[in-house]
Amino acid sequence: MTSPRQIHLGVSMRNPYHIAAWRHPDAPSRAEIDLDNYVQVAQIAERGKFDMAFLADGVGVRAKEHAARHMVAHDIVNFEPLTLLGALSMVTSRIGLIATASTTYNEPYHIARKFASLDHISKGRAGWNLVTSWSEAEALNFGLEQPPEKLGRYDRAAEFVEVVKGLWDSWDEDAFPMDKASGTFFDPSRMHVLDHRGRHFTVRGPLNVPRSPQGRPVIIQAGATDRGREIAAAHADVIYAASQTLAEAQAFYRSVKDRMPKYGRRPEQLAIMPGFSIIVGATEEEAQRKFRVLQDLLDPQVGLMMLYNMVGDFSGYDIDGPVPRLDAAPQVRSEILYGIAEREKLTIRQLYERIAVSRGHHSVVGTPEQVVDEMEAWFTQGGADGFNILPPHLPGGLADVVDMVVPELQRRGLFRKEYEGTTLREHLGVVVAPGERSSQPFQGEVA
Amino acid sequence: MTSPRQIHLGVSMRNPYHIAAWRHPDAPSRAEIDLDNYVQVAQIAERGKFDMAFLADGVGVRAKEHAARHMVAHDIVNFEPLTLLGALSMVTSRIGLIATASTTYNEPYHIARKFASLDHISKGRAGWNLVTSWSEAEALNFGLEQPPEKLGRYDRAAEFVEVVKGLWDSWDEDAFPMDKASGTFFDPSRMHVLDHRGRHFTVRGPLNVPRSPQGRPVIIQAGATDRGREIAAAHADVIYAASQTLAEAQAFYRSVKDRMPKYGRRPEQLAIMPGFSIIVGATEEEAQRKFRVLQDLLDPQVGLMMLYNMVGDFSGYDIDGPVPRLDAAPQVRSEILYGIAEREKLTIRQLYERIAVSRGHHSVVGTPEQVVDEMEAWFTQGGADGFNILPPHLPGGLADVVDMVVPELQRRGLFRKEYEGTTLREHLGVVVAPGERSSQPFQGEVA
Repeated sequence: MTSPRQIHLGVSMRNPYHIAAWRHPDAPSRAEIDLDNYVQVAQIAERGKFDMAFLADGVGVRAKEHAARHMVAHDIVNFEPLTLLGALSMVTSRIGLIATASTTYNEPYHIARKFASLDHISKGRAGWNLVTSWSEAEALNFGLEQPPEKLGRYDRAAEFVEVVKGLWDSWDEDAFPMDKASGTFFDPSRMHVLDHRGRHFTVRGPLNVPRSPQGRPVIIQAGATDRGREIAAAHADVIYAASQTLAEAQAFYRSVKDRMPKYGRRPEQLAIMPGFSIIVGATEEEAQRKFRVLQDLLDPQVGLMMLYNMVGDFSGYDIDGPVPRLDAAPQVRSEILYGIAEREKLTIRQLYERIAVSRGHHSVVGTPEQVVDEMEAWFTQGGADGFNILPPHLPGGLADVVDMVVPELQRRGLFRKEYEGTTLREHLGVVVAPGERSSQPFQGEVA
Repeated sequence: MTSPRQIHLGVSMRNPYHIAAWRHPDAPSRAEIDLDNYVQVAQIAERGKFDMAFLADGVGVRAKEHAARHMVAHDIVNFEPLTLLGALSMVTSRIGLIATASTTYNEPYHIARKFASLDHISKGRAGWNLVTSWSEAEALNFGLEQPPEKLGRYDRAAEFVEVVKGLWDSWDEDAFPMDKASGTFFDPSRMHVLDHRGRHFTVRGPLNVPRSPQGRPVIIQAGATDRGREIAAAHADVIYAASQTLAEAQAFYRSVKDRMPKYGRRPEQLAIMPGFSIIVGATEEEAQRKFRVLQDLLDPQVGLMMLYNMVGDFSGYDIDGPVPRLDAAPQVRSEILYGIAEREKLTIRQLYERIAVSRGHHSVVGTPEQVVDEMEAWFTQGGADGFNILPPHLPGGLADVVDMVVPELQRRGLFRKEYEGTTLREHLGVVVAPGERSSQPFQGEVA
């Protein structure tokens, strides 16, 4: 990493995190299915010198019921992320491009190949956000009634990421002399055949893509369970965390970084980036006014649907009464929300209003100075290495951050004024050492 | 289709079909892994008003042995096609973009989603070349020792394509009013849930991509077996055929078109486009000189490897002796090659020299007039609706076709001078009727 230590910034391009964002007067209502909107968002983030732009994803219409006319845009329709990032790589030049892909409904060879290809096409800017897919809607599109149970999903994920990294190491940098005169296209001694035989996968390799510009594309992980933290400590370059308070963020940060040495990794090889919903205005009053515009667009039916997707069904209860604890197995995310409701003594309506803006992530509404004060506190007090910005609506909410928050970060010396490198790993300061390999050299016969 | 009947043209962007193409003095040796080369090829083809540009593909290092240093470039390393076509969609505006994807090693939901996404991103120019994957190298990357046997692969493919088409029909064109004022994002009565339960797949749907600009992306099929012809007759908009002679082409053409009525389809709803390897020069002598440059770059070791991949192992036989019939189950492709060898009484060396240029496809070496004479004969005598051009090397071999052959086709009124439509289906004249659907309207409860 550069010295002094710098904040890393990402932006979620797909989830304008406020649930009524699509109804915002300045937002394109067709944002999720409008290529030009994505182009604009990626270019604004690049103008802001962001490390990366990120596409959340699911392989299904993820709302649990096909019921509400008012459903959240990105949970219904969007574009497949790799195809979209291929396109965005042609209209940007520096910003990292992150796609989400499931380890539950994919094969590792396909995933290794797609991200290695995107890394070549984007000249070293690809990243993979590894998810295990929780929704029933996705399971039903792949021949299952329910998603596999959580431990099984994480077990598969842990092996999956080993296979993908091994496939990315299939070829040395100098494996392809492509010498026309001698007719030597490749050098077999520079090829590494993985020959993986595991519990979930048997994959021979090698990958049919040369070693990519970053050596290995960046790996991002977001799961907060114990098993998820282990996978992150062992493999991830970035974590998208979800913490409501600095204290929570600090506990999570320590918990993950403390696990790294046992995998032979240094804490600075992993950037922990909590989600930050930011609504910024020149004055506090302006920021609050922007916030109210969004909250006023929130339909109670949508609020209940959101709670239904995140916690459970509150539709039989008084919307202005206290939040009851439903009879269901505790989940990390639902516990976070019960925690907020109990701590702040919220009604059902207040809970969905409270989380509509950020869906369980930390949210700041204020002036550039106020926003950066919070970011600086989290960054300097062991809560974060950077932030995954969740603009309340796109592209306007992101432009506000780039135009107001980024200059304040730069003024305080916390964030780059220009890109120093060209690859995402260079932005993050997590370059793969040349010669770092997870698979063995090819030992077979060579003609 | 426009009147008078017009030839359709495609180009293979990945397989410079001559096996020594990468050694050609004018060819970039890194063509398969050089984004700029693909950009150039797609733009040259678009300058030539081609209907489409095509990426062959496999999910593995497909050469049977990792032996020859002189291996064919595209059989070793390349980019994943959908990611690459996402990128190419941003630097072209009219030409159709075709990616190959396997029905054996993919899930239909992913394939439906990727091609629908590419169709949106390219504004109606996406096409899927459906293959079932024959190679052992691919099987080994997906937990199998061998590919599933051929009939099983085709059985899965037939169901796969039904599911994909059904998923493409998930939403009506007007399913997303996205009305900010009323908060109506989508109209549930315009949603169609597939709920497919078949032998190979159980897929609920709906697809999380809106109906795409072409209604359905174009479907291309290349298998020449009886079962492959049935799938093509039932579903394909385009066939990439491989015929050595006009007589063979006519027989194939009739055989497929005759099967269409039983699926309720008219013969003109399917364009049959045989592969044509074209080496063109201003004079016959210049064309032959271009041909010899390539043939002289062909190493005997590579020639035998090519035969090994296509027919079997001839390495124990006299390279200048007759082609022996090897002890192996007859395959469509090997039978084609035995047929050529017997008809023309070729030695092993002559056979690989003969097919090096086109790998079993028809090949023409001559002046623009001679080339177009052949194309016109195939087109007017019931052998072809168009041609998938296999340039011997890229981008130069394609530029020759665009600069010399296309003007002659246009002069004879056989090929467009300008694009008339903007989508691939408009170029092909196979537009999907509005309201054409393969799945039923959603019947569930709606809030």
